[in-house]
Amino acid sequence: MTTTTLTIADLHGRVEAIFRKAGLNAVQAGALARVIVAGERDACKSHGIYRIEGALRTVKSGKVKPDAVPELDLNEGSAIVKVNADGGFANAAFELGVPALAERTRKLGIAALVINDCTHFSALWPEVEAVTKEGLAGLVMCPSYATVAPAGGNKPLLGTNPFAFGWPRKDTSPYVFDFATSVAARGEIELHRRAGKQLPEGWAIDADGHPTTDPEAALAGAMLPFGGHKGSAIGTMIELLAGIMIGDLTSPEVLDYLGTTTLAPFHGELIIAMSPQAFAAGRPGDPFARAELLFEAIVGSGARLPSQRRFAAREKSETEGVVLTAAELELLDRLFEKGLEAVS
Amino acid sequence: MTTTTLTIADLHGRVEAIFRKAGLNAVQAGALARVIVAGERDACKSHGIYRIEGALRTVKSGKVKPDAVPELDLNEGSAIVKVNADGGFANAAFELGVPALAERTRKLGIAALVINDCTHFSALWPEVEAVTKEGLAGLVMCPSYATVAPAGGNKPLLGTNPFAFGWPRKDTSPYVFDFATSVAARGEIELHRRAGKQLPEGWAIDADGHPTTDPEAALAGAMLPFGGHKGSAIGTMIELLAGIMIGDLTSPEVLDYLGTTTLAPFHGELIIAMSPQAFAAGRPGDPFARAELLFEAIVGSGARLPSQRRFAAREKSETEGVVLTAAELELLDRLFEKGLEAVS
Repeated sequence: MTTTTLTIADLHGRVEAIFRKAGLNAVQAGALARVIVAGERDACKSHGIYRIEGALRTVKSGKVKPDAVPELDLNEGSAIVKVNADGGFANAAFELGVPALAERTRKLGIAALVINDCTHFSALWPEVEAVTKEGLAGLVMCPSYATVAPAGGNKPLLGTNPFAFGWPRKDTSPYVFDFATSVAARGEIELHRRAGKQLPEGWAIDADGHPTTDPEAALAGAMLPFGGHKGSAIGTMIELLAGIMIGDLTSPEVLDYLGTTTLAPFHGELIIAMSPQAFAAGRPGDPFARAELLFEAIVGSGARLPSQRRFAAREKSETEGVVLTAAELELLDRLFEKGLEAVS
Repeated sequence: MTTTTLTIADLHGRVEAIFRKAGLNAVQAGALARVIVAGERDACKSHGIYRIEGALRTVKSGKVKPDAVPELDLNEGSAIVKVNADGGFANAAFELGVPALAERTRKLGIAALVINDCTHFSALWPEVEAVTKEGLAGLVMCPSYATVAPAGGNKPLLGTNPFAFGWPRKDTSPYVFDFATSVAARGEIELHRRAGKQLPEGWAIDADGHPTTDPEAALAGAMLPFGGHKGSAIGTMIELLAGIMIGDLTSPEVLDYLGTTTLAPFHGELIIAMSPQAFAAGRPGDPFARAELLFEAIVGSGARLPSQRRFAAREKSETEGVVLTAAELELLDRLFEKGLEAVS
């Protein structure tokens, strides 16, 4: 197989150029390119250049504003910083808000960043990592489309509602997890369908609410939350906090609004940041040093810390560049040339 | 079976008197009695009067201070309110801190209450409910003793680390969940051991890290987190935020300090409160009314909201009183008469 190695900067330039040519303004194109290149760099292919078409499709549908200019509301005197994404992608809004979130958190110990009126795109780990880069712990969550049935229910009412957390570490990559609160991601069910394979038990129910291992029936029915009623409760909490509380759409409302799950979802996002230094002030021990002892014990017991595979791939990409196949390079060429015409 | 019905106030008086006679001061005895009576009232027997002996045993061991006077640190200018429990039970410290937490949250939108140097006692739902009574959403978490292996690990390093959430509802009981981040509570494994029953698969590993269904082997080994690596990650997050970040003990440190899992654990606790009104300000829709639509849809789909059994029992107890068996009344008599001598 012919492959080509690109530097991270070169890949960024190519992805950004695709979005600029497709009509996105600089702030939207830059932010999207950063998360897509981060996915590719981390060998997280499902969040890499494969996602460009989805972003373009959402632009073409008119459900996201390509020239949106997010607006920061410092909301002085409170612990809540807000960014209105102006109907653009969440990524640009997040980049605008994170310095203000960090400053507010350092001042008050805990603070929140609310993003409203955004199209969510890609994973939450780039955002959690950005919070940890400020020396802060971060919790990030958002709804999705209604594709998951609450435990015991027979209808999709919750989203795959991702839940992500990060803790900063000195001289090494942060402790980061980012997962869907459904058993599996919707894409995994789609992959089983294409491969003609049955699903593992416990992933999904059919349209009548009965357990199914048939991917077609699952796509017409609902996915199940991870961890039974506990994961279902966390998924519900995310609808309440990151949908309803912040005055933005819930997963059923997102699905009503879009009418499809093939476009990136339009809603809001909640980021909570905490300063370990502020919380630990006056107490014995350095929180960062103590956390290292816990991580050491976890690794010593044979368990892995989350995201380690991603960080290993990142290290390799940063020194050796990102390797793309001929087909992937052709995809980039085609998307640059055809822009929105390349997607249906 | 002979039973006796007591009013909630009468039961409270009896439980409080037991603690007072055993040497607890008014603030400790009152707070403990309130959570124990709440458990009994809600037909949550595992958190009712059955727990009195454990509290007395912890007092007798010298690991909790019976005359502790919690101290509030308003920490003005920040979003973190702190209460030092002075080595007493968490419950008294929480009661002292919650009005200040509510005030700070209403002012800033989001705020945290940190409880340090406390002995954790009973469930987290009484605390989450107290936050919702202030019209706020609440998240509560704390470590425990190291009895749970991280996913993929072969040693108990995490606690059963409870995670609780509440959302206020008008004219009805709040939306509340409160669960262990382990598959099962340690008490359930103990119950299987006493009954000579095998455990379901997936609950535990033995001392060599191999899956086991033998309760003895499980108690000598480790429990497993709920939901595989996802629950494991949440359990780890709780160690980081509600142990290390707040400058208090982690689950392995608690077990080292106590040397046993038969006493109530000594550590800290983290409560995060959010004001839906502050977060939703300036956005369309009333968050409380919108949440009702979500709850209605969940119930309509055949799923249950968490805690509903407890709330139904509460309603009954509040009108009809709490029913105790002759053996339970004898237990209360014996504990009142013998005090710390009644426990080993």
